[in-house]
Amino acid sequence: MTTHTSLGAGREFDAIRAMLDVWGPRARGIGDDAAIVAVPAGEQLVVSTDTSVDNVHFRRTWISARDIGYRATMAALSDLAAMGARPLGVLLAMVVPEADRAALVEYAAGVGDAVADAETVIVGGDISAGATLSLGLTVLGAAARPLTRGGARHGDAIWVTGALGGPGAAVAAWEQGGEPSVACRARFARPCARVAAGQLLGAAGATATVDLSDGLVADLRHIAHASGVHATIALEHLPVLAGCTLRGAALSGEEYELVFTAGDGFDAQAFTTATGLPVTRIGHIDAGAPGVTVTEHGVRVEISGGHDHFSV
Amino acid sequence: MTTHTSLGAGREFDAIRAMLDVWGPRARGIGDDAAIVAVPAGEQLVVSTDTSVDNVHFRRTWISARDIGYRATMAALSDLAAMGARPLGVLLAMVVPEADRAALVEYAAGVGDAVADAETVIVGGDISAGATLSLGLTVLGAAARPLTRGGARHGDAIWVTGALGGPGAAVAAWEQGGEPSVACRARFARPCARVAAGQLLGAAGATATVDLSDGLVADLRHIAHASGVHATIALEHLPVLAGCTLRGAALSGEEYELVFTAGDGFDAQAFTTATGLPVTRIGHIDAGAPGVTVTEHGVRVEISGGHDHFSV
Repeated sequence: MTTHTSLGAGREFDAIRAMLDVWGPRARGIGDDAAIVAVPAGEQLVVSTDTSVDNVHFRRTWISARDIGYRATMAALSDLAAMGARPLGVLLAMVVPEADRAALVEYAAGVGDAVADAETVIVGGDISAGATLSLGLTVLGAAARPLTRGGARHGDAIWVTGALGGPGAAVAAWEQGGEPSVACRARFARPCARVAAGQLLGAAGATATVDLSDGLVADLRHIAHASGVHATIALEHLPVLAGCTLRGAALSGEEYELVFTAGDGFDAQAFTTATGLPVTRIGHIDAGAPGVTVTEHGVRVEISGGHDHFSV
Repeated sequence: MTTHTSLGAGREFDAIRAMLDVWGPRARGIGDDAAIVAVPAGEQLVVSTDTSVDNVHFRRTWISARDIGYRATMAALSDLAAMGARPLGVLLAMVVPEADRAALVEYAAGVGDAVADAETVIVGGDISAGATLSLGLTVLGAAARPLTRGGARHGDAIWVTGALGGPGAAVAAWEQGGEPSVACRARFARPCARVAAGQLLGAAGATATVDLSDGLVADLRHIAHASGVHATIALEHLPVLAGCTLRGAALSGEEYELVFTAGDGFDAQAFTTATGLPVTRIGHIDAGAPGVTVTEHGVRVEISGGHDHFSV
């Protein structure tokens, strides 16, 4: 049963009520000063916060308000996937300009779609006026042994889930005044955080994981630095979404696939059978200085960039 | 010992490094996809998110960047105080316009001051470019039996901590082109979340609590609706900060004092001795329709308003 503490008068509370109507049973216990969440005994809380800002992470001419809500929520949930955590709930902090007030329930509907797909609930939030639209998602999860970026070892293989390049190709098409393919558009507008797969990775033998939010090369650099190891990937082995390029796959940010390292014991076929998610071996960890080397048919190539929100 | 996962290149990471330098041991374990936090066995997680937006919750001509960071953090921690929770850590989600980049470490220093004063730490966050400055604070706490707004009973007395009216008087002075008194300015720029007092309230006999963020009358209305009771307060009994008015005390928002209800067993003197915090009895709960009545020397008066961020 869903119960909400009664709210008083005021426009802020009218807005919250409208969102609660959209969410129905996907929101729980909203209305007190703070949410109360049980973390199962023997597990640790895993928590992350991620903000999607108008004209930085999306443009409203590209995707609908409902897509924006969905995408912002999945982007945040992806951090739980990368830690191997089971979602316990999300909190939504929205800053809404006056001109966007009418679309508020559409943003909320997208958040609701995403929490339903990830089998979790909305447990709290905050709404405020402001000149720039933003959606701040705080995600709460639990894991007995959270995965981190710091466990990659010399000799591990490097793996990635899914097929890459879609979000980068979609943004490039929009910025050139065109329209992306249906597949590339969907990868940007309706990304799928690999929440179930992430929870299986630890038992499957993963030693380090990161989610693909900054782009493959940049995110692999995070594993390399955190683990104190060197990573080499072969460009020609990257799984590429139809219509995208190998270099696009190496640089495309906000994919929300998982990159992980694992020893010889990792059984890719069993993992794919269990999760329905293809995984591709793209390189290996060795003992060089912390960093990432990209090769193309054995020849070292320079892949510059990686997604940095401050540069958008 | 403070440990941070190594971060890769990029302006976003340079910004995070600069903040970590400011925070020193007040930040813990930053740099993975998500933070890992232990919630003690037998306790529940209490979590809230609160966003402070430029020109909505503050103006940069009124207070310093360091004050803005402090105030945003205490505003969020106040929600833990209202639930009687012990802080476990905070996450900071900042949206920073290009023009504010130089002041980033000042905002961070204010956040650091506040977490030090509340005896907690920064466990994670997110930083993004964007057209409007905002600070989103998610606060994590733990409590064996969290307090809520919903437990007020017929016959309870209504109490409030501290002295009221300062923030409202400060904003009024600034908006009229003047300068507030030192005391009123301090109440706005450097509010003190009643975190230690909140943790004692349950054992002291409080039945319902709320923090004073929307203004006394509006917040008491939250307790009345959540508990299904009627509240009557006597205007002349409100504790008023020097230089403020009774009506100002009834309406001033963002006080971050605690309003609570308690039965006859509540010992105000013992509570003040334990917390160093004055408490004042301002009214009582009766069995009328959910709502709030304000009287002045026994005569009912209308006090309109209450703080609504959408109206600022």
